[in-house]
Amino acid sequence: MFRMVDVIEKKRNGEVLTKEEITFFVNGYTVGSIPDYQASAFLMAIYFKGMTAEEQGFLTMAMVESGDQIDLSAIEGIKVDKHSTGGVGDTTTLILVPLVAACGVPVAKMSGRGLGHTGGTLDKLEAIEGFHIELTEEQFVKQVNDLKLAVIGQSGNLTPADKKLYSLRDVTATVDSIPLIASSIMSKKIAAGADAIVLDVKTGDGAFMKTEADARALAHSMVAIGKQVGRNTMAVISDMSQPLGFAIGNSLEVIEAVETLKGNGPEDLTELCLVLGSKMIVAGEKATSVEEAREMLKAVITDGSALELFGKLIEAQGGNGAIIHDTSLLPTAKYQIEVPALSSGYVTKMEADDIGVAAMLLGAGRATKDDEIDLAVGIVLTKKIGDAVQEGEPLAIIHSNTEAVEQSMTLIQKHITIGKEAVESPRLIGDMITG
Amino acid sequence: MFRMVDVIEKKRNGEVLTKEEITFFVNGYTVGSIPDYQASAFLMAIYFKGMTAEEQGFLTMAMVESGDQIDLSAIEGIKVDKHSTGGVGDTTTLILVPLVAACGVPVAKMSGRGLGHTGGTLDKLEAIEGFHIELTEEQFVKQVNDLKLAVIGQSGNLTPADKKLYSLRDVTATVDSIPLIASSIMSKKIAAGADAIVLDVKTGDGAFMKTEADARALAHSMVAIGKQVGRNTMAVISDMSQPLGFAIGNSLEVIEAVETLKGNGPEDLTELCLVLGSKMIVAGEKATSVEEAREMLKAVITDGSALELFGKLIEAQGGNGAIIHDTSLLPTAKYQIEVPALSSGYVTKMEADDIGVAAMLLGAGRATKDDEIDLAVGIVLTKKIGDAVQEGEPLAIIHSNTEAVEQSMTLIQKHITIGKEAVESPRLIGDMITG
Repeated sequence: MFRMVDVIEKKRNGEVLTKEEITFFVNGYTVGSIPDYQASAFLMAIYFKGMTAEEQGFLTMAMVESGDQIDLSAIEGIKVDKHSTGGVGDTTTLILVPLVAACGVPVAKMSGRGLGHTGGTLDKLEAIEGFHIELTEEQFVKQVNDLKLAVIGQSGNLTPADKKLYSLRDVTATVDSIPLIASSIMSKKIAAGADAIVLDVKTGDGAFMKTEADARALAHSMVAIGKQVGRNTMAVISDMSQPLGFAIGNSLEVIEAVETLKGNGPEDLTELCLVLGSKMIVAGEKATSVEEAREMLKAVITDGSALELFGKLIEAQGGNGAIIHDTSLLPTAKYQIEVPALSSGYVTKMEADDIGVAAMLLGAGRATKDDEIDLAVGIVLTKKIGDAVQEGEPLAIIHSNTEAVEQSMTLIQKHITIGKEAVESPRLIGDMITG
Repeated sequence: MFRMVDVIEKKRNGEVLTKEEITFFVNGYTVGSIPDYQASAFLMAIYFKGMTAEEQGFLTMAMVESGDQIDLSAIEGIKVDKHSTGGVGDTTTLILVPLVAACGVPVAKMSGRGLGHTGGTLDKLEAIEGFHIELTEEQFVKQVNDLKLAVIGQSGNLTPADKKLYSLRDVTATVDSIPLIASSIMSKKIAAGADAIVLDVKTGDGAFMKTEADARALAHSMVAIGKQVGRNTMAVISDMSQPLGFAIGNSLEVIEAVETLKGNGPEDLTELCLVLGSKMIVAGEKATSVEEAREMLKAVITDGSALELFGKLIEAQGGNGAIIHDTSLLPTAKYQIEVPALSSGYVTKMEADDIGVAAMLLGAGRATKDDEIDLAVGIVLTKKIGDAVQEGEPLAIIHSNTEAVEQSMTLIQKHITIGKEAVESPRLIGDMITG
């Protein structure tokens, strides 16, 4: 039997832990026989000393095994999940679910609400009146077998160790440790039943990983964990130095998703969906190359079948499928207020983080988990980095249910920099990491 | 107001904390508004990132102010305290108290029991029948003014922050952090009312600091804290690669102390007492140089006044002062068993740590704080490093109340190495650190 103090000391001294030691920690912490104060000292030691790929694999699987695991074996085909590390105005999940399913890859998506500038995928879907995210495991499996897609809220007691550890990390300055982030994400995907995982690791001002080096390190860690635990995993580094697409807000992002599925989406958002979608289709073995997969994705946009499938998903889960043809059925804010540019020139910088805060102040997101979201409100940008702008011309439209939007307007004006010289648009897609 | 998570993060990032941040932590942790799990993460961050001398001073004083402080202002003269960092067979306190007091420096000593190979100073004194260590603060001050010396157990609520932190460090692998050790020791000495502090930092196998570099670093830290908080502090590095003196055990060490006060003590123990005592007398301003002080110390040994004062201390605190003339009045073990050398040659190594364990197994020390000590038992070494030895000749005498001493005997034989070549005795006194 181990003593936790010895396990802490071993990691503190930079030694590599065994599977048994890591499992002892995770199990003991989950049931409470190892107290918070030992766990937090251990996490801080990991912060400083890191973990090998093998240790991260053990940690991931111990967290997976700490709770329920979703059994998707009754769904035919390879279940491919996708995870984005979070950003501002990220509507990719909403688009990818029907897009990939329309190409024949079963998508059994378990989503969250989360804190942040806007709601999570579940909040966005609930902007569609009547849409419900509670399905039994049986209904969930049946719907995916029938329609190829379903989106539900997290059910059951998945990765309780991760939940408990995450709360502790939050208050002990041990959140930004790459091995801990990587194993936390991977454990949730694996417990949710993924056979293969496509990761979208965002980098830049609006992302959790501020630098490309950190994003790459996180991507490498997760891909290595995937290899370690036998799940086909790949990662794409994508830019979040400016918001993705134009819309930031729940209902506004559903509209943007519908437009993208129609082939009229913002260029960057469309491209990222094609890149991630291609990877998912190859991982799901419905195409043998990303080029072939990309053509399939374009075809299901052009022929309308991806959009139609989105409508079926909505109907199957109690919502009004008509919104795919008439987005004015979605919640609409009372006021649309222009944010004028204060000078002429070129957009050289859009600080995604601060623009996200402007949306949150309007009510689009949650600061604490008890906050209510206003699904109708948000921001629609009209410019992106590199665009020319005239003084007085709108930089964005604020969608609000109050006329008092000075604070958000000022934030947007302050954090969209207008320079004299034209700059290039930031590169959207960075490294691809496949292990 | 601060948030503890921000203070942890600041230290984790290697930044220097302010007095206010450190005091916020110590006070919050003492009253319980900062939980153990934040404290342990913070301690681990300190383990990795260290603390400046100024930060250590703030931490020390915040711990001092977390509880009661002994007011010794009614005692005339400079109150000089002495602290040894712990070792095996360390009888220096018992000798230094009467020795220094006999030279006119008031010694108001507060001592502990502690865990370890043998008991603390209090346990040793309690080997003298009737000796009691409970005096009121008033009695304590009066006795020191009358006799120049008194020894009591810790009374009042001294440094509760340090007590609480120490318990936490013990189970979170954050004990061996030099800034934490240094501020813990210094806070206890300052709260106990010391004006000046002489530190005996031991190094070697039997010490807490295994290497001389670590011992030096700890000494420098403590001297810097003393300077920071305005207490005259100096440190001596002394050898603990072999046990100090010959006796390991409570009653046995009292006998050794009496012999040393008579001028018949072991050479190394006598020398260390003269070195530390000289420093104490200079710090107490009863001599202007260590050479002068050393002569004073030798004189009070030669003329018997130090021994006589030890007798008065014992009588004043309820014990039988006659033991200074007849040590057979002290508890005696039933059996004296020789530990024969298994080969001939020279003693090249005596692993103090393991020899200490041999004494503890006989009952001389406590493994947990509820263990009972057998005051009579222990080990008296007959050899030291460098001595020649013949096969069959005793290396030590075991004093035991049972004949079943195989385990202790084997330990002693195993950890006293006998080589073919003569080696030099290790240097007893290392660096002197005065800031």
